[in-house]
Amino acid sequence: MFTPGPLTTSRTVKQAMLRDLGSRDVAFIACVRQIRRTLLTLAGLSEEKRDHQAVIMQGSGTFGLESVIGSTVPPEGKLLVIMNGAYGERIARIAEMLNIETARLEYPPNRPPVAVEVDQFLTDDRSITNVAVVHCETTTGIINPIEEIGIVVKEHEKSYFVDSMSAFGAVPFDFEKCGIDFLVSSANKCIEGVPGFSFAICRRDSLLATEGWARSMSLNLLAQWQGLEENGQFRFTPPTHAILAFEQALHELQAEGGVAGRAERYRDNHETLVAGMRELGFSEYLRPEVQGAIITAFQYPSHSRFKFDEFYAGLNDRGFVIYPGKVSDIDCFRIGNIGHLFKRDMHSLLAAIRATLSEMQIEIPCR
Amino acid sequence: MFTPGPLTTSRTVKQAMLRDLGSRDVAFIACVRQIRRTLLTLAGLSEEKRDHQAVIMQGSGTFGLESVIGSTVPPEGKLLVIMNGAYGERIARIAEMLNIETARLEYPPNRPPVAVEVDQFLTDDRSITNVAVVHCETTTGIINPIEEIGIVVKEHEKSYFVDSMSAFGAVPFDFEKCGIDFLVSSANKCIEGVPGFSFAICRRDSLLATEGWARSMSLNLLAQWQGLEENGQFRFTPPTHAILAFEQALHELQAEGGVAGRAERYRDNHETLVAGMRELGFSEYLRPEVQGAIITAFQYPSHSRFKFDEFYAGLNDRGFVIYPGKVSDIDCFRIGNIGHLFKRDMHSLLAAIRATLSEMQIEIPCR
Repeated sequence: MFTPGPLTTSRTVKQAMLRDLGSRDVAFIACVRQIRRTLLTLAGLSEEKRDHQAVIMQGSGTFGLESVIGSTVPPEGKLLVIMNGAYGERIARIAEMLNIETARLEYPPNRPPVAVEVDQFLTDDRSITNVAVVHCETTTGIINPIEEIGIVVKEHEKSYFVDSMSAFGAVPFDFEKCGIDFLVSSANKCIEGVPGFSFAICRRDSLLATEGWARSMSLNLLAQWQGLEENGQFRFTPPTHAILAFEQALHELQAEGGVAGRAERYRDNHETLVAGMRELGFSEYLRPEVQGAIITAFQYPSHSRFKFDEFYAGLNDRGFVIYPGKVSDIDCFRIGNIGHLFKRDMHSLLAAIRATLSEMQIEIPCR
Repeated sequence: MFTPGPLTTSRTVKQAMLRDLGSRDVAFIACVRQIRRTLLTLAGLSEEKRDHQAVIMQGSGTFGLESVIGSTVPPEGKLLVIMNGAYGERIARIAEMLNIETARLEYPPNRPPVAVEVDQFLTDDRSITNVAVVHCETTTGIINPIEEIGIVVKEHEKSYFVDSMSAFGAVPFDFEKCGIDFLVSSANKCIEGVPGFSFAICRRDSLLATEGWARSMSLNLLAQWQGLEENGQFRFTPPTHAILAFEQALHELQAEGGVAGRAERYRDNHETLVAGMRELGFSEYLRPEVQGAIITAFQYPSHSRFKFDEFYAGLNDRGFVIYPGKVSDIDCFRIGNIGHLFKRDMHSLLAAIRATLSEMQIEIPCR
């Protein structure tokens, strides 16, 4: 699978699920504690200082986002969403569903947000209490400047939320320098666990300040943290098997050299992919300066015989799953470089693309 | 594990998770379709008539409850919760967190609700729009009369919600006769899948009538259904592995003779347990007439050397996990009869209890 998730996981990660554990079991509680500790380490944070806390939330990544949005914007608060793609848009929609007043600072999908414009926005609208931005916008694969934005947000003393869903674990950044109050990611992205839960990394002070703000019982971030702190247990049945898989996935991430090691493998995958795709005649949607190594959007070739559905099916028949996805007005498809994928897998995919194009009677390069 | 979940699952259910599937994969979409169909069959409903629909929701059972409560009570609606335990209380609390006006009709934990009193309540308070009750109240294991209550609720033309979390799949009932509009259960109860999602079985008309009512994006029941209907896909990343396990669990349920077959095994487990426990000197909290076969609450013996923590730890050391749980003012513990457990497992548990009591120097029978 060459998608942004569900993605390919290692055999050993899946095998960790061949075990039933009770949610009050000592072994399970120890596993959850260790996971929460490791997540802080991955974010470059110290567990001893207790300034930051990791909270696991059942459900998909979107459930984690909604948990943070619904629990950390005060009752009369206003959320500014800085957006340049579908996932920024999703944050705004979640907030609107929750009757949270929302402002949007929109950019085209191929342009990163500009910190000085965020500064201006916050100067003009003093009623904003919280600011949200997506780290790696999966719509295009663009990496947004979360540190530059964070510095501005903190100058204005707003709460700062980073949706690092498809970046955390494989894109190095400095959590404290970014001034992040809340960050969300999920089990089934760069950490390469199986889907079933998301997690938030929170500044402890900022989390404690949210008392009484949650708009939901299931998605109450503070209550979920309090439950985990009190006795190490979840308030509601946890996905024990997915959590065991995640523990194994974290071991494998550390064995690979942590965030830096994983970033290197993804970078390698990405470079192999882009070089091969260019050779086949494809071109990327984004300029290389803003392109991350997580997922790459390619434009449809203008060739008259290129029909995306046929291309997709041809690859599918060969056992390769890519990711459709229109960006604004431009027809694109996306290829994920993440998951248990290595250079050799990228080469296999490129060979399958070559064979599919040839079957479609499209000469190479295929412009 | 002798708990109400996470519970023991079969090896084959867990092995079904050794496979990564994309959420848009044809095989995965077919699996989800088949699961939704089978859930209707289990409820004794026909798929062809299309009068009822099964919706899968990510997260634990509580997420499923909140999804139904938050999506099916109209904006100015009022929810009556009929309660005789902690799970009825939870429904009321979820509604209150969502700012839904809530009324409570409370019974002691050892008494089933009385339909004629529900009738009176609905006559007295005309502003009620929705009624909720728990099918098997896991606090005690009591089975509530969902059909008698349902008939009254339908006479008053209210929307009827049954929390059948720990009953569905092993307690026979007539969905249509009960007049149920929405029922919730989860993967990791009587169907014996792994935890990670819940599901709702909905009257189609009642579901369609909820347009615009949802209070959350993640937990929007109607939108989730519309997504599944449109292209067979989830709106947000599904727990693919837990869903594959559930497909296998449904096969195993059918091979066992469906709801009737499973009910029989659980009844057998329950009877073996109760007979053995009585022999050891324990007595049940509930009268046998209202006791279900899902989980059984036993009172602490009054013996001066009986310390529950010691008892629990002794069993745990022998590899048996039971479930603590105070009921009102009476000290009880609970033993679940559900999961991949058979008569021989109940006998092994009884032997471990006997050994633990003897280690605690408590003579048998232990009153």
